[in-house]
Amino acid sequence: MQQRIDILDSTLRDGAQAEGISFSVEDKLKIVKALDELGIPYIEAGNPGSNPKDIEFFERIKTIPLRHARLTAFGSTRRRDTRVEEDKNIQSLVSAGTTVVTIFGKAWDFHVTEIIKTTLEENLKMVSETVAYLKNLGREVIFDAEHFFDGYKSNPGYAFKVLEAAAEGGADCLVLCDTNGGCFPSEVYEIVKKVRETFDIKIGIHTHNDGGMAVANSIMAVEAGAEHVQGTYTGFGERCGNANLSTIIPNLQIKKGLYCIPGENMKNLTFTARKISEIANISLNRREPYVGSSAFAHKGGMHIDGVCKATSSFEHIDPELVGNKRRFLMSEVSGRNTILEKIREINPSIGKDSEETHAIIQKLKELEHQGYQFEGAESSFELIIRKELGKYKPFFELEKFKLMTEKPDRGTNSASALIKVKVDGVSEITAAEGNGPVNALDRALRKALEVFYPELSNVHLTDFKVRVIDSKSATAAKVRVLIESTDGETSWSTVGVSTDIIEASWIALVDSIEFKLLKDLEKKIKAYL
Amino acid sequence: MQQRIDILDSTLRDGAQAEGISFSVEDKLKIVKALDELGIPYIEAGNPGSNPKDIEFFERIKTIPLRHARLTAFGSTRRRDTRVEEDKNIQSLVSAGTTVVTIFGKAWDFHVTEIIKTTLEENLKMVSETVAYLKNLGREVIFDAEHFFDGYKSNPGYAFKVLEAAAEGGADCLVLCDTNGGCFPSEVYEIVKKVRETFDIKIGIHTHNDGGMAVANSIMAVEAGAEHVQGTYTGFGERCGNANLSTIIPNLQIKKGLYCIPGENMKNLTFTARKISEIANISLNRREPYVGSSAFAHKGGMHIDGVCKATSSFEHIDPELVGNKRRFLMSEVSGRNTILEKIREINPSIGKDSEETHAIIQKLKELEHQGYQFEGAESSFELIIRKELGKYKPFFELEKFKLMTEKPDRGTNSASALIKVKVDGVSEITAAEGNGPVNALDRALRKALEVFYPELSNVHLTDFKVRVIDSKSATAAKVRVLIESTDGETSWSTVGVSTDIIEASWIALVDSIEFKLLKDLEKKIKAYL
Repeated sequence: MQQRIDILDSTLRDGAQAEGISFSVEDKLKIVKALDELGIPYIEAGNPGSNPKDIEFFERIKTIPLRHARLTAFGSTRRRDTRVEEDKNIQSLVSAGTTVVTIFGKAWDFHVTEIIKTTLEENLKMVSETVAYLKNLGREVIFDAEHFFDGYKSNPGYAFKVLEAAAEGGADCLVLCDTNGGCFPSEVYEIVKKVRETFDIKIGIHTHNDGGMAVANSIMAVEAGAEHVQGTYTGFGERCGNANLSTIIPNLQIKKGLYCIPGENMKNLTFTARKISEIANISLNRREPYVGSSAFAHKGGMHIDGVCKATSSFEHIDPELVGNKRRFLMSEVSGRNTILEKIREINPSIGKDSEETHAIIQKLKELEHQGYQFEGAESSFELIIRKELGKYKPFFELEKFKLMTEKPDRGTNSASALIKVKVDGVSEITAAEGNGPVNALDRALRKALEVFYPELSNVHLTDFKVRVIDSKSATAAKVRVLIESTDGETSWSTVGVSTDIIEASWIALVDSIEFKLLKDLEKKIKAYL
Repeated sequence: MQQRIDILDSTLRDGAQAEGISFSVEDKLKIVKALDELGIPYIEAGNPGSNPKDIEFFERIKTIPLRHARLTAFGSTRRRDTRVEEDKNIQSLVSAGTTVVTIFGKAWDFHVTEIIKTTLEENLKMVSETVAYLKNLGREVIFDAEHFFDGYKSNPGYAFKVLEAAAEGGADCLVLCDTNGGCFPSEVYEIVKKVRETFDIKIGIHTHNDGGMAVANSIMAVEAGAEHVQGTYTGFGERCGNANLSTIIPNLQIKKGLYCIPGENMKNLTFTARKISEIANISLNRREPYVGSSAFAHKGGMHIDGVCKATSSFEHIDPELVGNKRRFLMSEVSGRNTILEKIREINPSIGKDSEETHAIIQKLKELEHQGYQFEGAESSFELIIRKELGKYKPFFELEKFKLMTEKPDRGTNSASALIKVKVDGVSEITAAEGNGPVNALDRALRKALEVFYPELSNVHLTDFKVRVIDSKSATAAKVRVLIESTDGETSWSTVGVSTDIIEASWIALVDSIEFKLLKDLEKKIKAYL
């Protein structure tokens, strides 16, 4: 049988400590569902003692059935010199009503005497009494030994005593925390091994990324005998973040053959990472191992050539195992194979040496020379191929636009745009304002075209990036504008290049709208056939 | 004496393989300067054989003196069945004219037979002959054993033979590469140790982050005896990126007491990371260990309380060691000393707790909240301090401007600007055209002001950068415009922020001109006194 590693996700507790994160109760419920569907066995969902929003959350979650996950409420040991029964935080923890509870206590003598300012003896009692109290209420108790590694390095005897106190109280799991995130893999291995040899209780690991080694430290702890791993699914957390579970799970399950989540859910790892990032409104780092959009993106010609011969030549795993995709990036360093793959999506009969392929490669070189870049602008790339293959017909024609910006302005909208377009011989003229010329132009263009294509009303831009390509000639330099658009269901990205930022934006805007209309038309044709 | 670890930065070579990165020759020169100033000893600057842009770079860099760094050109071993002397890539490598050369060769039998399709014997010859050839030309030769770890796991005997071939050729350093980035720290340690015990040549490590463990794998290699570490300064690289040197350097130097860069430069680690990100136009991940803006940001109440009692309670190092800042997210406290230093340049009598200092800090906080950033815009920063101290008088007044862009346009200049300014009660109205609205505005403004200030005729912009700050709201998002200006003698940089790119550019343009006029006036006053 596969050895099992218990994964505990703390996105909703430790993750909420990250800069820029602010979860609503609604957000929290959505994240619990996403993690539960993935098959995460423990979800640490909040600290009901310190956060009133969490109390509401624990009430509402009671009515929602979960398939895989058990929720755990998180809190401190009782306060010093207080009876557990009379400690308000402990009572909030109990009323959260979870079957599992995580209790953290100090394992570093310096923190006991200098930060919570009590005696070393009293701290041990705080640990054992709190754990025992919750065990008597029938809870599964996970004990987080805060600052365990720093504590062990400062006073190993006392750090072990803290674990003993938790064990005496009946804790089900002793979690060793690298709270400040500065430990090295080899020391984590050594220390976890000593604990493993001393205690006959499940050992857990909780690491932070301040030294950039949170994932490795977790893996080393597992190699030393830990069977419970805490982290946050996309690595959110205080300072540099927590150990990233979307990296740890495939590392353990694919590479080491351990069981973390149901095997059939592994292909949902990428989807879940994107979903959680979206709920948190934090863009997922494209370089994120396994789940980032660049994780299996190849750019160098030799790498692309290698991957075409054998994928394992430059990929450590098959991207499909985690639901991600291989991508060949269009660039000056990428080769013909990438382009051919794209061409064949549109016309499968075209070969590597056909005239069309040559013409398209020639066109791309020209455009790249002008400053175009098609990685991250796949939709513009597709439109260029279609144009070259004669598989493209414009959806509208620009008759003219005029943009005006004035200062001093008479309101928040300093820019206004007048636009006239023509569709199948019918003209439409309109105008719109915006808080900048591109914003005004975007609004005016969509306003005019909605008359003919009402489906454009769902479209909006989600990202707008400007890059000065060659800044030598300053304001007369070329700019590249990248636009990302969505209709609520899918998203697509387009690019424009010009010495004029308005012209560059216009090119990208037009591509965005043409691409949307083209895809809608294709859907309609497919439905008809 | 401190043990030395040689750091090799490959931002310009392996980093350029990252999605979204496209360096101009100008960008590359700036990055070399930044890394050299930091004290990085080896800079791998490009592959002259595969990239014509790199040939231009190597020509231009020859004229630029470096203080610490030696440049290395990167290339493959000779092709199969070719004489080294006749291999074009090797010849490009030689003509790059660097004293150090990095040669990569295949160390995985599968790659030899399946990807480059030659015999195992011929591959060994390709390695030894190429290295020997370059050694005979007097070069220092670093040998990158590509896929060494995967190769070792598949066929340890052959992997070692490849290293032997490089050693026979006279290589100065044998670098073990985890090219696919999937290795685990414990196996890296074991394998490096075996190599270390076998060879009496410097051993290096080159890791990728596909398993999220590139930093830890590099550290484990050093613990096993490696003395040369390759990576990229901010972790850019193919797929999930390379080992991040801005994490590895402080891990080794601060935590393990090894020498990587001059000790006095450690405080520039954060600044350099921001600078390189800015040049690459990639925003630095705020959670980046040591150098990210959140790396020492505390949010949880208990953590803030702890840090106030003793910073080491929740910080693994003092942020000042790497030039970063502690931040309390509830009640932000910025680096007062830096600001005070600037204030005293203008008025030396002002103290740390004076009213003016408080007012300026308040103002800066407000501006930072709006999206301003003064690293790389020191002139705007000086103007703000002067305004707060009452040491500032505007040199002109804007009465109005009107900008127009039209499409279709009637020439190369699609934009035109009308402007009216007033100096000492005298108005001047004029107009100019440009190939974009900002260009037209810049020309019109200087044309109008030259009537009053002829010295402005020497001024022109050398750099113009646009950064979308919060891209969530697309074309209505805020942009930050950074401008660099020169009068032929000195150069200065200014910044503007607005939701409107025209307004943001205007703010930066005005600061640029005011700063120039101010400095000229100061010079005149000094000459008079």
